[in-house]
Amino acid sequence: NSKLRLFSLNSNEPLAEEISRHIGIPLGACEVNHFSDEEVSISIEESVRGCDTFVIQSTSQPVNEHLMELLIMVDALKRASAKTINLVMPYYGYARQDRKSRSREPITAKLVANLLETAGADRVISLDLHAPQIQGFFDIPIDHLMGVPLLSDYFSEKEDLNFDDVVVVSPDHGGVTRARKMADRLKTPIAIIDKRRPRPNVAEVMNIVGDIEGKTAIIIDDIIDTGGTIKLAAQALVDKGAKEVYACCTHPVLSGPAIERIESSIIKELVVTNSIQLAEEKKIDKITELSVGALIAQAIVRVYKEESVSTLFDN
Amino acid sequence: NSKLRLFSLNSNEPLAEEISRHIGIPLGACEVNHFSDEEVSISIEESVRGCDTFVIQSTSQPVNEHLMELLIMVDALKRASAKTINLVMPYYGYARQDRKSRSREPITAKLVANLLETAGADRVISLDLHAPQIQGFFDIPIDHLMGVPLLSDYFSEKEDLNFDDVVVVSPDHGGVTRARKMADRLKTPIAIIDKRRPRPNVAEVMNIVGDIEGKTAIIIDDIIDTGGTIKLAAQALVDKGAKEVYACCTHPVLSGPAIERIESSIIKELVVTNSIQLAEEKKIDKITELSVGALIAQAIVRVYKEESVSTLFDN
Ligand SMILES: Nc1ncnc2c1ncn2[C@@H]1O[C@H](COP(=O)(O)O)[C@@H](O)[C@H]1O
Ligand SMILES: Nc1ncnc2c1ncn2[C@@H]1O[C@H](COP(=O)(O)O)[C@@H](O)[C@H]1O
Repeated sequence: NSKLRLFSLNSNEPLAEEISRHIGIPLGACEVNHFSDEEVSISIEESVRGCDTFVIQSTSQPVNEHLMELLIMVDALKRASAKTINLVMPYYGYARQDRKSRSREPITAKLVANLLETAGADRVISLDLHAPQIQGFFDIPIDHLMGVPLLSDYFSEKEDLNFDDVVVVSPDHGGVTRARKMADRLKTPIAIIDKRRPRPNVAEVMNIVGDIEGKTAIIIDDIIDTGGTIKLAAQALVDKGAKEVYACCTHPVLSGPAIERIESSIIKELVVTNSIQLAEEKKIDKITELSVGALIAQAIVRVYKEESVSTLFDN
Repeated sequence: NSKLRLFSLNSNEPLAEEISRHIGIPLGACEVNHFSDEEVSISIEESVRGCDTFVIQSTSQPVNEHLMELLIMVDALKRASAKTINLVMPYYGYARQDRKSRSREPITAKLVANLLETAGADRVISLDLHAPQIQGFFDIPIDHLMGVPLLSDYFSEKEDLNFDDVVVVSPDHGGVTRARKMADRLKTPIAIIDKRRPRPNVAEVMNIVGDIEGKTAIIIDDIIDTGGTIKLAAQALVDKGAKEVYACCTHPVLSGPAIERIESSIIKELVVTNSIQLAEEKKIDKITELSVGALIAQAIVRVYKEESVSTLFDN
C-alpha cells in the first residue's frame, strides 16, 4: 500500500496540526517561503514518490496568496512523482463568484477549479461550498463535508436552551435548505428572513416568514463576511418579538467591520468553525470556535483507505 | 474586421496609458476592485463581443495579486465572447523559477503558462523573459520582445561616452549572449564577471574575463532584484581597474535593500525600462527610466493586423 503524507501550507497550521494528531502521523517537512520580491518559494524536504499526499490549505484571506501557494505546491508534488495529490480545502475562496449575476462578470469559482486541476490535483475535500453546484465545476472527485452536524450538536448540548422554544432561522432565501437540516437535527421549526426591496433605491424591508414570537432564534449561514446581514437579521428578529438570538456559521470570513458589528449587535453568541483560522484580534468573547479537525481527519483516512466518505455528510 | 480593445489592469497604468496614446485608441472601461475580504472583483463596462482584446498587466510585485487579476480578467473576457484574448505582460513574474535546481522544486514559470492558457489566453506578448526557453512553456503563440535595442540606443546617444573606451559587461555566465548583443550595437568588446566558489562555505571569488583596464564599463542584466549582484560586480570592476561603471537592465524589480545598495554603490547611473512601474520612493536620481511604450504599441498593432512581430526583435 502506498504511504499517506500530510502537508500544511500557511493558511491554517493549527487545524493542520490537529488533523495530524487525529490521524496519528506527523505533518510532512515542507518550507513555504517568499523570495525578496514576494514570489512564493516552496521546497518539499522529504520524498513523496509514490505517496498519497494530502495538502491542507484554506483559500482564505489573503486569498490570492493562499491560492498560489496551493497551486505551486501541487506543481512541486506532481514533479516529485507523488502518486495522488489530494487538496483539503476547508474554506474554498471565491465560492461566491459562482455565476454571472451581471453581463461580463467572471465566474471565478469555476476558474479556480480549472486552475487546481491544471496544476495537477487529483481530488478535493471541502466543507460547505457556498453553492453545492460548485462540486460540478470540477472534473475530478470532490468530497463535500457539512458543518451543520457540528454546529447543531453544539447547540443541542447547551443546557440553558429549551428546545420547545427554539426556532432555526435562515437569514436569506438561499439558506433555507441549510436551516431545514439544522432544524431536523434540533427538532425545531424554521423561520426565514424574507428581504424585499419594494422599489429600486428604496431601503430593503425585512419580513419574517414563520413564528418567532417569544422564541430563541438560532440564525445559521455558511459564511459571515462583513457581518452586515447577520446584525440586521438579529435586530429584525428581536424587533418582531424573538426572546434572544444566537448565530452560527461554518466559515468566519469576518472581514472589514465584522467584529465591531458582531460586538455591538444583539447577538448573544456567534458559533463558528475553524475552517478559517481566526486572527487573535478576532477572538472576542462572543465568538465560540468549534473544530472541524476530527471530521476532516476522518474524511482523509476514508479517502486514503478508498472507503466511502458519504456517511460523513449526514445530510 | 474585428475591433481592437485595450484593457489595463492594476500593475502598470501609466505604461498602459502610454501604449493607448501610441495606438490612438482609449483604454477600455473596466473596473478592477476588491471585495471586503480582498477577493478580486472585475467588471468590464463595455461590449467585447467579437473583439480582439489586449490586456496589459505585468505580474510584478505583488505578483500573486497581479496574476490572479489577469486570470480573472481572461475568464471574464472569454465569457463575454471576446474573439481573441491577447496578454501583454511586459514583466513575466516567476520567470526565475524556470527549472528544478534542487529535488522537489516546482517549475512555477511553467505552471503560470499553463494557468494563463487554462483561463483562456490566445497569445502572449512579453519582454526579455529570464530564459528564452520560457517561450516553449506555452502552447499558444508568444511574441518575445527585447530590451537591448532600447537600452543600447540610450547609451549610444550619450555625448560624454567615448566608445573606443567602453566595454559591455555580463554580471554572470547566463547573461553573456545579452551582453554580446548590446556590444554588437555599440561596437565595443565584452567582458564577463566569472564568479566561482573555490570550496563550499568559502566566499565567492570575482574574476573578470576580458580587458577592462581604464575603460568605462556598462553592466547589462535582465532583472535587477535586490541589487546585491550588481553592486558587487561594479565594485569588482573598479577594483580591477575600470574607470567608471554604468549599469542597465530591462526589469527593475528592485526589492528589499535594492535602492539603498544602488544608492551606496559605485554605479554612476542605472538605466531601466518601465516594464515594471517604479514606486515613487524608488525614483532616485541615479536611476533613468526608458519607456517600452512605443515598442509594445507597435507589437500590439502588428499582432492585430496579423503582421510579423519578429522584425521588432532585432536580435
Ligand atoms: N468576496 C465577495 N464579497 C462580497 N460579495 C461577493 C464576493 N464574491 C462575490 N460576491 C458577490 O456576491 C454575490 C453572490 O452572493 P450570494 O447571492 O450570497 O450567492 C454575487 O453577486 C457576487 O458578485
Ligand atoms: N523571485 C526570486 N527571487 C530570488 N531567487 C529566485 C526567485 N525565483 C527563483 N529564484 C531562484 O533563482 C535561481 C534561478 O536564477 P538564475 O540562476 O539567475 O536563473 C533558482 O535557483 C531559483 O530557485
